[in-house]
Amino acid sequence: MAMFDSPGMALALDAARAAEAMGEVPIGAAVISAAGEVLAISHNRVETDRDPTAHAEMLVIRAATALRGTKFLEDCDLYVTLEPCAMCAQAIAFARLRRVYFAASDPKGGGVEHGARVFAQPTCHHRPEVYGGIREAEAAALLREFFHSRR
Amino acid sequence: MAMFDSPGMALALDAARAAEAMGEVPIGAAVISAAGEVLAISHNRVETDRDPTAHAEMLVIRAATALRGTKFLEDCDLYVTLEPCAMCAQAIAFARLRRVYFAASDPKGGGVEHGARVFAQPTCHHRPEVYGGIREAEAAALLREFFHSRR
Repeated sequence: MAMFDSPGMALALDAARAAEAMGEVPIGAAVISAAGEVLAISHNRVETDRDPTAHAEMLVIRAATALRGTKFLEDCDLYVTLEPCAMCAQAIAFARLRRVYFAASDPKGGGVEHGARVFAQPTCHHRPEVYGGIREAEAAALLREFFHSRR
Repeated sequence: MAMFDSPGMALALDAARAAEAMGEVPIGAAVISAAGEVLAISHNRVETDRDPTAHAEMLVIRAATALRGTKFLEDCDLYVTLEPCAMCAQAIAFARLRRVYFAASDPKGGGVEHGARVFAQPTCHHRPEVYGGIREAEAAALLREFFHSRR
Protein backbone atom coordinates (compact mmCIF):
# COMPACT_ATOMS: atom_id res chain seq x y z
CA MET A 1 0.00 0.00 0.00
CA ALA A 2 3.01 2.29 0.42
CA MET A 3 2.88 3.52 -3.17
CA PHE A 4 -0.86 4.25 -3.11
CA ASP A 5 -1.40 7.85 -4.20
CA SER A 6 -3.64 9.36 -1.55
CA PRO A 7 -4.39 13.09 -1.52
CA GLY A 8 -6.20 12.56 1.82
CA MET A 9 -3.16 11.03 3.45
CA ALA A 10 -0.96 13.82 2.05
CA LEU A 11 -3.18 16.33 3.87
CA ALA A 12 -3.04 14.27 7.07
CA LEU A 13 0.77 14.05 6.86
CA ASP A 14 1.03 17.82 6.34
CA ALA A 15 -1.14 18.30 9.44
CA ALA A 16 1.09 15.90 11.39
CA ARG A 17 4.12 18.02 10.45
CA ALA A 18 2.28 21.15 11.63
CA ALA A 19 1.63 19.40 14.95
CA GLU A 20 5.30 18.60 15.31
CA ALA A 21 6.22 22.24 14.68
CA MET A 22 4.14 23.26 17.69
CA GLY A 23 5.44 20.55 19.98
CA GLU A 24 2.47 18.20 19.65
CA VAL A 25 2.82 14.50 18.93
CA PRO A 26 2.83 14.50 15.09
CA ILE A 27 -0.46 12.87 14.17
CA GLY A 28 -2.75 14.40 11.56
CA ALA A 29 -6.15 13.58 10.11
CA ALA A 30 -8.55 14.67 7.39
CA VAL A 31 -12.18 13.96 6.48
CA ILE A 32 -13.04 13.95 2.78
CA SER A 33 -16.44 13.34 1.23
CA ALA A 34 -17.06 10.83 -1.55
CA ALA A 35 -17.44 13.85 -3.84
CA GLY A 36 -13.88 14.88 -2.97
CA GLU A 37 -14.71 17.80 -0.72
CA VAL A 38 -12.21 18.29 2.12
CA LEU A 39 -14.47 18.80 5.15
CA ALA A 40 -11.84 18.98 7.88
CA ILE A 41 -8.10 18.79 8.48
CA SER A 42 -6.60 18.81 11.95
CA HIS A 43 -3.88 17.37 14.14
CA ASN A 44 -3.34 16.26 17.67
CA ARG A 45 -3.85 19.21 20.07
CA VAL A 46 -3.69 17.45 23.45
CA GLU A 47 -0.90 19.64 24.85
CA THR A 48 -2.02 22.93 23.32
CA ASP A 49 -5.62 22.54 24.42
CA ARG A 50 -4.76 20.59 27.59
CA ASP A 51 -7.54 18.28 26.47
CA PRO A 52 -6.89 14.52 26.65
CA THR A 53 -9.61 13.94 24.03
CA ALA A 54 -8.10 16.31 21.44
CA HIS A 55 -6.83 13.61 19.09
CA ALA A 56 -6.67 14.44 15.39
CA GLU A 57 -9.55 12.08 14.54
CA MET A 58 -11.87 13.52 17.20
CA LEU A 59 -11.17 17.05 16.00
CA VAL A 60 -11.86 16.30 12.33
CA ILE A 61 -15.01 14.36 13.15
CA ARG A 62 -16.31 17.22 15.29
CA ALA A 63 -15.34 19.80 12.68
CA ALA A 64 -16.88 17.87 9.79
CA THR A 65 -20.16 17.17 11.61
CA ALA A 66 -20.33 20.83 12.67
CA LEU A 67 -19.76 21.94 9.08
CA ARG A 68 -22.40 19.57 7.76
CA GLY A 69 -24.84 20.12 10.64
CA THR A 70 -25.37 16.36 10.92
CA LYS A 71 -24.12 13.74 13.34
CA PHE A 72 -23.40 11.22 10.57
CA LEU A 73 -20.73 11.29 7.87
CA GLU A 74 -21.85 8.22 5.94
CA ASP A 75 -20.48 9.39 2.60
CA CYS A 76 -17.11 10.40 4.05
CA ASP A 77 -13.69 8.85 4.55
CA LEU A 78 -11.22 9.58 7.34
CA TYR A 79 -7.46 9.66 6.78
CA VAL A 80 -5.13 9.53 9.77
CA THR A 81 -1.39 9.06 10.10
CA LEU A 82 -1.60 6.58 13.02
CA GLU A 83 -3.91 3.66 13.76
CA PRO A 84 -6.82 5.13 15.77
CA CYS A 85 -7.05 4.40 19.50
CA ALA A 86 -10.20 2.92 21.03
CA MET A 87 -11.65 6.39 21.69
CA CYS A 88 -11.23 7.52 18.11
CA ALA A 89 -12.27 4.18 16.61
CA GLN A 90 -15.55 4.27 18.54
CA ALA A 91 -16.10 7.91 17.49
CA ILE A 92 -15.52 6.85 13.85
CA ALA A 93 -18.18 4.15 14.28
CA PHE A 94 -20.63 6.62 15.87
CA ALA A 95 -20.08 9.06 12.98
CA ARG A 96 -20.71 6.19 10.52
CA LEU A 97 -17.71 7.09 8.41
CA ARG A 98 -17.50 5.05 5.24
CA ARG A 99 -13.79 4.24 5.21
CA VAL A 100 -10.76 4.72 7.43
CA TYR A 101 -7.31 4.97 5.89
CA PHE A 102 -4.42 4.96 8.35
CA ALA A 103 -0.66 5.08 7.91
CA ALA A 104 1.41 3.66 10.79
CA SER A 105 0.10 0.88 12.96
CA ASP A 106 0.17 1.32 16.76
CA PRO A 107 0.73 -1.90 18.73
CA LYS A 108 1.07 0.05 22.02
CA GLY A 109 -2.06 2.17 21.83
CA GLY A 110 -4.10 1.24 18.78
CA GLY A 111 -7.73 0.18 19.03
CA VAL A 112 -8.42 -1.08 15.51
CA GLU A 113 -5.91 -3.88 14.88
CA HIS A 114 -4.74 -4.02 18.50
CA GLY A 115 -6.15 -4.02 22.03
CA ALA A 116 -9.84 -3.13 22.08
CA ARG A 117 -10.30 -3.93 18.36
CA VAL A 118 -13.38 -1.73 18.48
CA PHE A 119 -14.76 -2.48 15.01
CA ALA A 120 -14.66 -6.24 15.68
CA GLN A 121 -16.84 -6.04 18.80
CA PRO A 122 -20.53 -6.97 18.90
CA THR A 123 -21.04 -3.62 20.71
CA CYS A 124 -19.91 -1.78 17.55
CA HIS A 125 -22.89 -1.01 15.35
CA HIS A 126 -21.14 0.50 12.32
CA ARG A 127 -18.00 -0.94 10.77
CA PRO A 128 -16.12 1.25 8.30
CA GLU A 129 -13.90 -0.29 5.67
CA VAL A 130 -10.34 -0.08 7.04
CA TYR A 131 -7.15 0.30 5.01
CA GLY A 132 -3.85 0.42 6.91
CA GLY A 133 -0.23 0.98 5.89
CA ILE A 134 -0.73 3.93 3.52
CA ARG A 135 2.50 6.00 3.56
CA GLU A 136 3.31 4.16 6.76
CA ALA A 137 7.08 4.74 6.58
CA GLU A 138 6.73 8.53 6.49
CA ALA A 139 4.21 8.65 9.32
CA ALA A 140 6.24 6.28 11.47
CA ALA A 141 9.46 8.25 10.83
CA LEU A 142 7.76 11.48 11.93
CA LEU A 143 6.69 9.88 15.22
CA ARG A 144 10.03 8.16 15.79
CA GLU A 145 11.98 11.39 15.25
CA PHE A 146 9.63 13.34 17.50
CA PHE A 147 10.02 10.96 20.44
CA HIS A 148 13.76 10.54 19.81
CA SER A 149 14.32 14.32 19.95
CA ARG A 150 12.43 14.51 23.26
CA ARG A 151 14.51 11.90 25.07
CA MET B 1 -24.50 -1.10 45.68
CA ALA B 2 -28.03 0.17 45.04
CA MET B 3 -28.33 1.74 48.48
CA PHE B 4 -24.95 3.48 48.34
CA ASP B 5 -25.44 7.17 49.04
CA SER B 6 -23.68 8.98 46.22
CA PRO B 7 -23.96 12.75 45.81
CA GLY B 8 -22.04 12.41 42.54
CA MET B 9 -24.53 9.96 41.09
CA ALA B 10 -27.42 12.16 42.25
CA LEU B 11 -25.94 14.99 40.16
CA ALA B 12 -25.48 12.67 37.18
CA LEU B 13 -29.09 11.45 37.45
CA ASP B 14 -30.36 15.03 37.62
CA ALA B 15 -28.36 15.78 34.46
CA ALA B 16 -29.83 12.69 32.77
CA ARG B 17 -33.33 13.99 33.55
CA ALA B 18 -32.40 17.37 32.05
CA ALA B 19 -31.25 15.56 28.91
CA GLU B 20 -34.56 13.75 28.65
CA ALA B 21 -36.44 17.04 28.96
CA MET B 22 -34.67 18.31 25.84
CA GLY B 23 -35.14 15.13 23.84
CA GLU B 24 -31.67 13.72 24.36
CA VAL B 25 -31.01 10.14 25.43
CA PRO B 26 -31.08 10.51 29.24
CA ILE B 27 -27.49 9.93 30.29
CA GLY B 28 -25.74 12.28 32.71
CA ALA B 29 -22.27 12.57 34.19
CA ALA B 30 -20.28 14.52 36.77
CA VAL B 31 -16.60 14.91 37.68
CA ILE B 32 -15.83 15.49 41.35
CA SER B 33 -12.40 15.98 42.91
CA ALA B 34 -11.18 14.00 45.92
CA ALA B 35 -11.66 17.21 47.91
CA GLY B 36 -15.34 17.15 47.00
CA GLU B 37 -15.31 19.96 44.44
CA VAL B 38 -17.79 19.48 41.61
CA LEU B 39 -15.73 20.30 38.51
CA ALA B 40 -18.27 19.49 35.81
CA ILE B 41 -21.81 18.24 35.28
CA SER B 42 -23.21 17.51 31.84
CA HIS B 43 -25.40 15.18 29.83
CA ASN B 44 -25.57 13.62 26.44
CA ARG B 45 -25.86 16.35 23.77
CA VAL B 46 -25.47 14.30 20.57
CA GLU B 47 -28.74 15.50 19.01
CA THR B 48 -28.58 19.11 20.20
CA ASP B 49 -24.99 19.60 19.09
CA ARG B 50 -25.26 17.19 16.14
CA ASP B 51 -21.97 15.84 17.44
CA PRO B 52 -21.57 12.04 17.63
CA THR B 53 -18.83 12.48 20.25
CA ALA B 54 -20.95 14.60 22.63
CA HIS B 55 -21.47 11.90 25.23
CA ALA B 56 -21.92 13.00 28.84
CA GLU B 57 -18.53 11.61 29.89
CA MET B 58 -16.64 13.36 27.06
CA LEU B 59 -18.27 16.67 27.92
CA VAL B 60 -17.46 16.50 31.64
CA ILE B 61 -13.88 15.41 30.99
CA ARG B 62 -13.38 18.27 28.55
CA ALA B 63 -15.05 20.76 30.91
CA ALA B 64 -13.08 19.60 33.96
CA THR B 65 -9.71 19.64 32.18
CA ALA B 66 -10.52 23.10 30.76
CA LEU B 67 -11.43 24.35 34.25
CA ARG B 68 -8.24 22.92 35.75
CA GLY B 69 -6.03 23.82 32.79
CA THR B 70 -4.50 20.33 32.87
CA LYS B 71 -4.96 17.25 30.73
CA PHE B 72 -5.00 14.91 33.74
CA LEU B 73 -7.63 14.52 36.45
CA GLU B 74 -5.74 12.08 38.66
CA ASP B 75 -7.44 13.15 41.90
CA CYS B 76 -10.93 13.06 40.40
CA ASP B 77 -13.79 10.61 40.09
CA LEU B 78 -16.33 10.38 37.27
CA TYR B 79 -19.98 9.49 37.86
CA VAL B 80 -22.14 8.44 34.93
CA THR B 81 -25.62 6.94 34.69
CA LEU B 82 -24.71 4.34 32.03
CA GLU B 83 -21.69 2.10 31.54
CA PRO B 84 -19.24 4.09 29.37
CA CYS B 85 -18.77 3.09 25.73
CA ALA B 86 -15.31 2.38 24.30
CA MET B 87 -14.85 6.03 23.28
CA CYS B 88 -15.61 7.35 26.74
CA ALA B 89 -13.72 4.57 28.55
CA GLN B 90 -10.56 5.36 26.58
CA ALA B 91 -11.03 9.09 27.27
CA ILE B 92 -11.36 8.28 30.99
CA ALA B 93 -8.07 6.37 30.80
CA PHE B 94 -6.35 9.25 28.95
CA ALA B 95 -7.57 11.71 31.60
CA ARG B 96 -6.22 9.38 34.31
CA LEU B 97 -9.39 9.63 36.36
CA ARG B 98 -9.08 7.92 39.74
CA ARG B 99 -12.45 6.16 39.87
CA VAL B 100 -15.46 5.57 37.65
CA TYR B 101 -18.87 5.04 39.20
CA PHE B 102 -21.61 4.01 36.80
CA ALA B 103 -25.27 3.15 37.27
CA ALA B 104 -26.84 0.94 34.58
CA SER B 105 -24.79 -1.57 32.68
CA ASP B 106 -24.92 -1.55 28.86
CA PRO B 107 -24.57 -4.97 27.21
CA LYS B 108 -25.38 -3.51 23.76
CA GLY B 109 -22.94 -0.62 23.69
CA GLY B 110 -20.76 -0.67 26.81
CA GLY B 111 -16.98 -0.70 26.59
CA VAL B 112 -16.02 -1.40 30.21
CA GLU B 113 -17.69 -4.70 31.16
CA HIS B 114 -18.73 -5.49 27.58
CA GLY B 115 -17.33 -5.45 24.06
CA ALA B 116 -14.01 -3.63 23.85
CA ARG B 117 -13.40 -3.89 27.64
CA VAL B 118 -11.03 -0.96 27.25
CA PHE B 119 -9.55 -0.98 30.76
CA ALA B 120 -8.62 -4.66 30.47
CA GLN B 121 -6.53 -4.20 27.31
CA PRO B 122 -2.72 -4.09 27.26
CA THR B 123 -3.10 -0.94 25.12
CA CYS B 124 -4.74 0.85 28.10
CA HIS B 125 -2.11 2.61 30.17
CA HIS B 126 -4.25 3.85 33.08
CA ARG B 127 -6.91 1.79 34.81
CA PRO B 128 -9.34 3.62 37.05
CA GLU B 129 -11.11 1.81 39.86
CA VAL B 130 -14.57 0.92 38.52
CA TYR B 131 -17.77 0.61 40.54
CA GLY B 132 -20.97 -0.34 38.70
CA GLY B 133 -24.59 -0.69 39.71
CA ILE B 134 -24.95 2.51 41.76
CA ARG B 135 -28.62 3.60 41.55
CA GLU B 136 -28.84 1.31 38.56
CA ALA B 137 -32.63 0.85 38.72
CA GLU B 138 -33.33 4.60 38.46
CA ALA B 139 -30.89 5.11 35.59
CA ALA B 140 -32.18 2.08 33.70
CA ALA B 141 -35.81 3.14 34.19
CA LEU B 142 -35.05 6.60 32.76
CA LEU B 143 -33.55 5.04 29.62
CA ARG B 144 -36.30 2.44 29.26
CA GLU B 145 -39.04 5.05 29.52
CA PHE B 146 -37.26 7.33 27.06
CA PHE B 147 -36.96 4.67 24.36
CA HIS B 148 -40.47 3.32 25.07
CA SER B 149 -42.01 6.79 24.58
CA ARG B 150 -40.19 7.14 21.24
CA ARG B 151 -41.43 3.91 19.73
